[in-house]
Amino acid sequence: MTPRIRLGMVGGGQGAFIGAVHRIAARIDDRFDLVAGALSSDPARARASADEIGLPRSYGAYIEMAEAEAAREDGIQAVAIVTPNNLHAPVAEAFLRAGIHVICDKPLTATLDEAYVLAELVRQNDSLFVLTHNYTGYPMIRQARAMVAAGELGTLRLINAEYLQDWLAETPAPDQKQAAWRLDPEQAGAGALGDIGTHAHNLACFVAGQSVAQVAADVGSLVSGRIIDDNVHATLRFSGGARGTLWASQVAIGHENGLSLRIYGDKAGLRWHQEEPNKLWFTRLGQPPQLLTRSGSGAADVANRVSRVPAGHPEGYLEGFATIYSEAADAILATETGGTLPADHHVNGIEEGVAGMRFIAACLKSSKADGLWTAL
Amino acid sequence: MTPRIRLGMVGGGQGAFIGAVHRIAARIDDRFDLVAGALSSDPARARASADEIGLPRSYGAYIEMAEAEAAREDGIQAVAIVTPNNLHAPVAEAFLRAGIHVICDKPLTATLDEAYVLAELVRQNDSLFVLTHNYTGYPMIRQARAMVAAGELGTLRLINAEYLQDWLAETPAPDQKQAAWRLDPEQAGAGALGDIGTHAHNLACFVAGQSVAQVAADVGSLVSGRIIDDNVHATLRFSGGARGTLWASQVAIGHENGLSLRIYGDKAGLRWHQEEPNKLWFTRLGQPPQLLTRSGSGAADVANRVSRVPAGHPEGYLEGFATIYSEAADAILATETGGTLPADHHVNGIEEGVAGMRFIAACLKSSKADGLWTAL
Amino acid sequence: MTPRIRLGMVGGGQGAFIGAVHRIAARIDDRFDLVAGALSSDPARARASADEIGLPRSYGAYIEMAEAEAAREDGIQAVAIVTPNNLHAPVAEAFLRAGIHVICDKPLTATLDEAYVLAELVRQNDSLFVLTHNYTGYPMIRQARAMVAAGELGTLRLINAEYLQDWLAETPAPDQKQAAWRLDPEQAGAGALGDIGTHAHNLACFVAGQSVAQVAADVGSLVSGRIIDDNVHATLRFSGGARGTLWASQVAIGHENGLSLRIYGDKAGLRWHQEEPNKLWFTRLGQPPQLLTRSGSGAADVANRVSRVPAGHPEGYLEGFATIYSEAADAILATETGGTLPADHHVNGIEEGVAGMRFIAACLKSSKADGLWTAL
Amino acid sequence: MTPRIRLGMVGGGQGAFIGAVHRIAARIDDRFDLVAGALSSDPARARASADEIGLPRSYGAYIEMAEAEAAREDGIQAVAIVTPNNLHAPVAEAFLRAGIHVICDKPLTATLDEAYVLAELVRQNDSLFVLTHNYTGYPMIRQARAMVAAGELGTLRLINAEYLQDWLAETPAPDQKQAAWRLDPEQAGAGALGDIGTHAHNLACFVAGQSVAQVAADVGSLVSGRIIDDNVHATLRFSGGARGTLWASQVAIGHENGLSLRIYGDKAGLRWHQEEPNKLWFTRLGQPPQLLTRSGSGAADVANRVSRVPAGHPEGYLEGFATIYSEAADAILATETGGTLPADHHVNGIEEGVAGMRFIAACLKSSKADGLWTAL
Repeated sequence: MTPRIRLGMVGGGQGAFIGAVHRIAARIDDRFDLVAGALSSDPARARASADEIGLPRSYGAYIEMAEAEAAREDGIQAVAIVTPNNLHAPVAEAFLRAGIHVICDKPLTATLDEAYVLAELVRQNDSLFVLTHNYTGYPMIRQARAMVAAGELGTLRLINAEYLQDWLAETPAPDQKQAAWRLDPEQAGAGALGDIGTHAHNLACFVAGQSVAQVAADVGSLVSGRIIDDNVHATLRFSGGARGTLWASQVAIGHENGLSLRIYGDKAGLRWHQEEPNKLWFTRLGQPPQLLTRSGSGAADVANRVSRVPAGHPEGYLEGFATIYSEAADAILATETGGTLPADHHVNGIEEGVAGMRFIAACLKSSKADGLWTAL
Repeated sequence: MTPRIRLGMVGGGQGAFIGAVHRIAARIDDRFDLVAGALSSDPARARASADEIGLPRSYGAYIEMAEAEAAREDGIQAVAIVTPNNLHAPVAEAFLRAGIHVICDKPLTATLDEAYVLAELVRQNDSLFVLTHNYTGYPMIRQARAMVAAGELGTLRLINAEYLQDWLAETPAPDQKQAAWRLDPEQAGAGALGDIGTHAHNLACFVAGQSVAQVAADVGSLVSGRIIDDNVHATLRFSGGARGTLWASQVAIGHENGLSLRIYGDKAGLRWHQEEPNKLWFTRLGQPPQLLTRSGSGAADVANRVSRVPAGHPEGYLEGFATIYSEAADAILATETGGTLPADHHVNGIEEGVAGMRFIAACLKSSKADGLWTAL
Repeated sequence: MTPRIRLGMVGGGQGAFIGAVHRIAARIDDRFDLVAGALSSDPARARASADEIGLPRSYGAYIEMAEAEAAREDGIQAVAIVTPNNLHAPVAEAFLRAGIHVICDKPLTATLDEAYVLAELVRQNDSLFVLTHNYTGYPMIRQARAMVAAGELGTLRLINAEYLQDWLAETPAPDQKQAAWRLDPEQAGAGALGDIGTHAHNLACFVAGQSVAQVAADVGSLVSGRIIDDNVHATLRFSGGARGTLWASQVAIGHENGLSLRIYGDKAGLRWHQEEPNKLWFTRLGQPPQLLTRSGSGAADVANRVSRVPAGHPEGYLEGFATIYSEAADAILATETGGTLPADHHVNGIEEGVAGMRFIAACLKSSKADGLWTAL
Repeated sequence: MTPRIRLGMVGGGQGAFIGAVHRIAARIDDRFDLVAGALSSDPARARASADEIGLPRSYGAYIEMAEAEAAREDGIQAVAIVTPNNLHAPVAEAFLRAGIHVICDKPLTATLDEAYVLAELVRQNDSLFVLTHNYTGYPMIRQARAMVAAGELGTLRLINAEYLQDWLAETPAPDQKQAAWRLDPEQAGAGALGDIGTHAHNLACFVAGQSVAQVAADVGSLVSGRIIDDNVHATLRFSGGARGTLWASQVAIGHENGLSLRIYGDKAGLRWHQEEPNKLWFTRLGQPPQLLTRSGSGAADVANRVSRVPAGHPEGYLEGFATIYSEAADAILATETGGTLPADHHVNGIEEGVAGMRFIAACLKSSKADGLWTAL
């Protein structure tokens, strides 16, 4: 066994959601040891949070942590950043400058300007930067991407991505920590557009192997008094010629985490829905629809490589997230030891992060211009 | 029993699709007797078609038919028009002028100008004009409309209509009669926009109780050499303030007749799919989704009134279409005898037809202006 | 067009369910003219019912009707029997003896003895006897049967049939006409076993091409005070070696009309559910599941021959029932004119009716013997 | 944080399936440290397997391991047994006698006699014995159980459990390690009956809160040359009066891991399927079906307590398994420190294990007696 990677975490203290997810994801395939953290900007909360999860080294501030860990022989090799969006850039900078690899939640930053600055830093730095667009970790998404790349759909014509939720259909209670920072433009940058729109955008591009070239968008809020967007309707033109749409909403009552992707070429079409992630519908023109399942008869090697259990035993959100961590581990080891990565290895990085921020900026710009087609 | 209405038909000869559907729809509830027709513009084909279905009186031309039937004491009371779109207006005119009620397939006409002229004629005429937007005949669509009208969804925020098919994903064989006229701009007016886009538009407005005020559209063809549209992406602003999207495509491989509707208010959301028409998903904010079924425990009176068999025995496309005919029969009888109609009686008429043609025109205009928001 | 068959009806007056279904089914494909009836054993109700549906000739008693119609030159050629089960035999006898073809609802009779007597009469009579096991009219059921017959599933191993409802989960209101006779052993013979169990039995045998050789059953009632069965658990041994189970219940809360069939061979398996009748799941060993749809890319000729509208436009219960009537019409015409029938033509007849009654009797006998394996 | 429990493992070396599952399950909630193992009965394979997963202490034999670990101050507190069935009893005995808690895969043993002997040992021993019937760890199964217990279904009438797979539809390749021991009566005891039938039996009893009192079974093999059962049809009488059926098959082509449960009372019914474990269908008599989802609006506290991520982010097989481990950890800590457990805490133990073995024995006995009703 290759040794586990020593991991730190910034953010993810008590009351947070995504920090705990990252920790489980890092444990599932046993590739990381979480050994240090600055789990909260509130030092008392940071300490209590660290105690609760049995963290060996707890820091009150991320800058202190970056310095101290860089100085230790057994210091962390990588840090997971799970703070509100506006802290991604400064935290990443601190650790990158300390020579520590970064695994950062999405969206990349709160503003496009921050994204550009961070991207420049990453380019000039030897450390890795991994962005956790976790839905790309689902096996059947890997398979969909491979099928598109292999030409099984032919020339792509239409791409439709949706991400529908309803948890912000009303103004949330003031003590709901998740909602608080996500609804604050200072901390979040964008609302639905950043929180879930970037996931849908990333997933569509990941599977299609095309980027979004232009967007015409209608971005707004449908809840009285809300100052950040909660609904996005976007029409898309992709770099490879495909047309498409993207709909992200946090007020579509009846949807929990309704991320879905539909792609149609001139030879075949496919459909996938995050709430049933082990299934991929595939239809060749003139043939009956096939239901491809994770680890099932129609599963491809690229899907099987990132699966853990036999067909019919559902893998879920945490396993898809774990694959992101395991691929990050592979990348870190390859970086540190010079090894090679499998041909189908993939991590989202700074480019995908910048692309997401460009998508946000273009949508907002288009929407302000009443839906004018806007280049990314 | 009230006597059956004497019905004629123009179009619907051998090789046609929708004519046979209208005939079954007219029979299911036993409200009509089909007694005359000009089933084809080709007189020999008209006769052969009439013989095949045992039609008592067959005509070689619709004008001759309108005159002859108007002159008979036992002449037809209503005519069903199931020709290509460009013949709707002249045929309707001939029968309306002859004092015969018209039941006309959609879209209303091939051009908006024709629609305005026909509308003026209808307004000045005592005969009824019914447009067969058949999907409004589904019981659970009636229920959805009633639920929206009763405020069960609260203020509407989002409306999404889709109509996805794949039968034109390739250039069809030259002898495919259905495809031939539908792909000919002269006969059809518009392509996917007219054939299925108007259905989606009508259904959304019918259920939402709002009209489309503005549209920003991307209309085009994705099959090489095709001169008529086969894909429409439209962003919508509704008269009542709701935002929405409409997607109609005839090249989305894997979809047979994928008409679906999703509507979200500030209190609840609902979802319906034409391929499973007996089901209506309804979710109140903060409560588990409910599956309302035709004639089931959650079915409303307005749905039960247009249902025929108990819950769990699926009614389908033909029964929904039959309801259109039965409501037309009710309307004809009420017109002729002065009777009253149930409060929840509904037929689409000339206004809905004009609205559909305005939708087509606005989409095409917006698309030519690169997606400019365009009023209907 | 071949002339329509003159049809009569016994039973099916006001308040009945299945009579109206038969009338619609007979109209859909326009092969019958309903011209006479004894719609109720109550003469006043018979007349009122006849008036309501515009029936040309109404009789107060079926014996009178059989005689009178046989004597007319334009008398009925066939009669539909839609009475309670205990009247099937005497009514059928009257019409068969009068030289009139019989289309009879299922189960065949109220008792096995009646079934044997009727079968003997049918054998000695030149008139046709058609039993309306309507679920065999669904196109995808026809396809399933053809696939099994063609060996696509290999040697059959397992057959599972279910028919789950919940409408008798409580004691129904006394004025519920449907429930009243179905819960009366005198009129119904058996309860769930006869009403829905025979459908499941017939469907399994129809598709599998095997008969049930032996049964071990647990038949009972789960509602206090009920004197007729409402639940049947049966284990089956088929004539061709397959094993299986059948479960029929009228107290399974949450099921409306849950008739389903699953068949597994050594090469492939298939699944079908009546509430989504246009779909047939088919899986070859080692290959992904395929979703075959009515009139879709995977639909076979035998399914297309009994379909009316294109793929994605759902056909339902009434169309499946209409196919039974149209196949009966074909059979009647072939009998009367000596014509031939298509190779895939099928009507259930007296043999299937007797098989159903034997199944009922064997289940009851086995259950009384505490589940002893009992030959049919 | 309470300290992690030091865990060992017997079985689960290279090529095994369930050992890796147990290891991931033990990691997900971070309650265990896997520190020792005898991963294979082949010492070289044991060592290589241990190296591959970075196991601190590797033993060549489980007896040696039990003794050595018991002697260490930092020795394991619990052992996971993931061997073929016939080794469960001797391995469990060795560790129980060494004062080490046991977490054992199911079925309990290869024979009922072994089960009785082991049960006696457990009763006389202070260590815990946990049986990993992992499907009881799914949140919506916890909720279903709680709903039944709270009377929401009323008096239970019908219980149907199915477990359908197809991976043994043909004779597997000789090198398929999973299949090899499972098809060997010496190592496995029973086939489908033990491997999956006991899961279905356990799940039905767990949710229903009733045990199986009597069974009438048809157990057999449908693949030529196979000497162990691959299909079980059983009719059931439950201790609380409910009737039911259980069907387990490893030859039902088209099913991957089709474990499902349906329970009907006189007030309501519910349905659950393992391949979509985050959903629970619930229907009250006379009301529309509700779709209850994990962490969703209808989720109960007992389900939320064993959930990790928000609604719509699917948890799967590994998370359900992890809950078994976390509940085992709670139980171990409570045993060692005298603490109390939540009211809804649950682990399957020796009683459930014996019940499963009795179920196997009764099914085999009934089947040999041609389906005679047999008490457990």
